[in-house]
Amino acid sequence: MSKLKRNERIGAIVKILSDAPNKVFTLNYFTEIFDSAKSTISEDLVIVKKLMEDLNLGRVMTIAGAAGGAKFVPALSKIDKTQLVERICQDVRNPDRIVPGNFLYMADILYNPVYAKGIGDIFTERYSSEESRVDYVLTVETKGIPIAVMTARGLNVPLVIARHENKVTEGPKLSINYVSGSSGTLRTMYIAKNAIRKGSRVLIVDDFMRAGGSAKGMSALVKELDCEVAGICVLFDSVHPTQKLVSRYTSLIRYEGIDSNGTILVHPNYEDLL
Amino acid sequence: MSKLKRNERIGAIVKILSDAPNKVFTLNYFTEIFDSAKSTISEDLVIVKKLMEDLNLGRVMTIAGAAGGAKFVPALSKIDKTQLVERICQDVRNPDRIVPGNFLYMADILYNPVYAKGIGDIFTERYSSEESRVDYVLTVETKGIPIAVMTARGLNVPLVIARHENKVTEGPKLSINYVSGSSGTLRTMYIAKNAIRKGSRVLIVDDFMRAGGSAKGMSALVKELDCEVAGICVLFDSVHPTQKLVSRYTSLIRYEGIDSNGTILVHPNYEDLL
Repeated sequence: MSKLKRNERIGAIVKILSDAPNKVFTLNYFTEIFDSAKSTISEDLVIVKKLMEDLNLGRVMTIAGAAGGAKFVPALSKIDKTQLVERICQDVRNPDRIVPGNFLYMADILYNPVYAKGIGDIFTERYSSEESRVDYVLTVETKGIPIAVMTARGLNVPLVIARHENKVTEGPKLSINYVSGSSGTLRTMYIAKNAIRKGSRVLIVDDFMRAGGSAKGMSALVKELDCEVAGICVLFDSVHPTQKLVSRYTSLIRYEGIDSNGTILVHPNYEDLL
Repeated sequence: MSKLKRNERIGAIVKILSDAPNKVFTLNYFTEIFDSAKSTISEDLVIVKKLMEDLNLGRVMTIAGAAGGAKFVPALSKIDKTQLVERICQDVRNPDRIVPGNFLYMADILYNPVYAKGIGDIFTERYSSEESRVDYVLTVETKGIPIAVMTARGLNVPLVIARHENKVTEGPKLSINYVSGSSGTLRTMYIAKNAIRKGSRVLIVDDFMRAGGSAKGMSALVKELDCEVAGICVLFDSVHPTQKLVSRYTSLIRYEGIDSNGTILVHPNYEDLL
């Protein structure tokens, strides 16, 4: 391959960095694949960094020193975040979603890969700083998985999924009982005993928080494993009950229920979003 | 914002296209955000297309005509595909994975976001052509979900997840009984009645195929909904039983069991991979 021009290198660097968020690529990595000098690559990175910022396409962080290099972190503008969350709210408000028992059919929203990616990017941005350090993303099956996958990919950490069944095919488990907010019944969740390394920091991600039973159950699992909860992120929370079983969490959309006219009351939670 | 230079536009175009695979962006979209002439953007796209191909970063397809524009499709080189699948095989071969009953603990591999993205890209590439037309990706909970999410995102189509429980909170369901290969028992899977539009083409994605019971069950659901199976993609299949319940499917890794020395026998299925 002949030597690339600057604009070709710029395009390639953007692709490589943004394809692997939160992964550090050394200058050497780029000097080798492009057969270029370090100074050239450094200049390329300055351009990449600036264009990403100018166009609100994310943040490129350069790391100085011997182990230095660059990594990409998703960063949505306030407008992009608001538009995404407003669009999801608009989608939720469709009265066809109301199913017998005054529940809302939400699976298509929670499984929408474009929404999941956007929400994952918002959670990723929030937990990408040095101080928040996340080693794993944990969710409980099933509806929060797409968002959790995208968050784990954004943070470049493994995903762990707690199950409701104790599958014999998966070896020794740790289990915990918790009260499910949606059914009010006692449920059990299981994770593989060695799924999470002792002393890790775990980000809990879920689709919907009512009373916070699942989040509390997952927090208990994390503590049982001698790990720490780095944070709790949900896409939706319900205003009822006002008293939650966990004290701090991030929620992007607030659900207030269905009023007497059959209107679905849901709105962005700007306080946590922006 | 001042006018961007060519290398800045190139970087931005790469980011925008590759962030939304299989989504067509019109020339107008780019002329507006960059405040540039169509001819300029067309030249940019030629450069983007070439650099992506030269560096094996994917394929940019330009669509001519009034509704014309460009879209990005993942395309891994043979080397990249082989390396990814070899790496997964190597990971599977770790004897610590063997759990009582001679089962393999595989959750961490199936939930690994980097693997899931790579496998999703391979399935996406295979089903991105005009002829294969995919309207939905369908999986059954739980372990195939990460791969299915990435495939749905790559193909830019909704994801549908069949459940093992009939959740009252989710409205009317269609259900089907099938024989589970892993347990040999009769199981039921459910999907929301309106999750898939009549007449659609559905790509079935799953983590592991033994006899093909789940895949056959999902195919039956698809047909019940007056839809067509566009294809069946699994990450792993087992050589036993040799007779599967579905006639055609794609599998990237072949599992032959654990031999008498405790060696895990697994290898890339090059025929389907390359």
